[in-house]
Amino acid sequence: MARTKTATRQEAPVEPHQQLHAVGVIRSTLKSRSGAPRQGREGAPDAWLDVRRSLARALDGIAVGDEILILTWLHQARRDVLEVRPRGDKRRRLTGVFATRSPDRPNPIGLHPVTVKDINGTRLLIGPIEAIDGTPVVDIKPLLGGIGV
Amino acid sequence: MARTKTATRQEAPVEPHQQLHAVGVIRSTLKSRSGAPRQGREGAPDAWLDVRRSLARALDGIAVGDEILILTWLHQARRDVLEVRPRGDKRRRLTGVFATRSPDRPNPIGLHPVTVKDINGTRLLIGPIEAIDGTPVVDIKPLLGGIGV
Repeated sequence: MARTKTATRQEAPVEPHQQLHAVGVIRSTLKSRSGAPRQGREGAPDAWLDVRRSLARALDGIAVGDEILILTWLHQARRDVLEVRPRGDKRRRLTGVFATRSPDRPNPIGLHPVTVKDINGTRLLIGPIEAIDGTPVVDIKPLLGGIGV
Repeated sequence: MARTKTATRQEAPVEPHQQLHAVGVIRSTLKSRSGAPRQGREGAPDAWLDVRRSLARALDGIAVGDEILILTWLHQARRDVLEVRPRGDKRRRLTGVFATRSPDRPNPIGLHPVTVKDINGTRLLIGPIEAIDGTPVVDIKPLLGGIGV
């Protein structure tokens, strides 16, 4: 079959799927989603973040006392939910998940601002954090000042 | 071959890979990474975020003037880089990528605080944002007040 050369000159389409790798895992006393606070600042405990040893160099520069952002993969979330009642409050109207922090969303990425409390090799004690035990961590970022997040 | 029953009673291992789906795409006048500012507040333009029409309900509740977080998949980033010189400054020492906002990192997820400037169906005019044209968007979240990010 004939192929036109123009096909190869087209811009690559946006990849519809991207593969995420766990860079670490949360080790917490929180064992189930039902027992977890909705946000870290609502009474959540500290937890250990076990980073993969092969990524040790990527942690260089993080110190005790730092304010950092943990990005998690909320592995128990539902990905087919488009609307929720905020904070599970049945008196509130249905709202699009992109206007809420519901863990149920097309890509269940959790965002957790925490303080680094201790560091032991590739294990970081962080908190407070509402993520449950076994939650995969997909990224760690410094918190920028002010509105920079 | 004999199988022990205990194997099925073990806890499921953490999934090493997770599949991310693009929920939309950035349409920007910024066409290349080399021409893009490092952060949105450093002179970046506004851009259109085209959300997949099938996800229209997930946008319900987002209004013009809202401060939101855009999570992108930095599709031109390198995933094998563990250390960088912050902001590409050769005078600065090598630092682990988890202590920087480098786009090069194991999971190249970008985090962009923006203001919603206009809404047209499932298209949102947002900014300022340093993400380049064609960057896949993987999540949209409201900005919580203060330290809640």
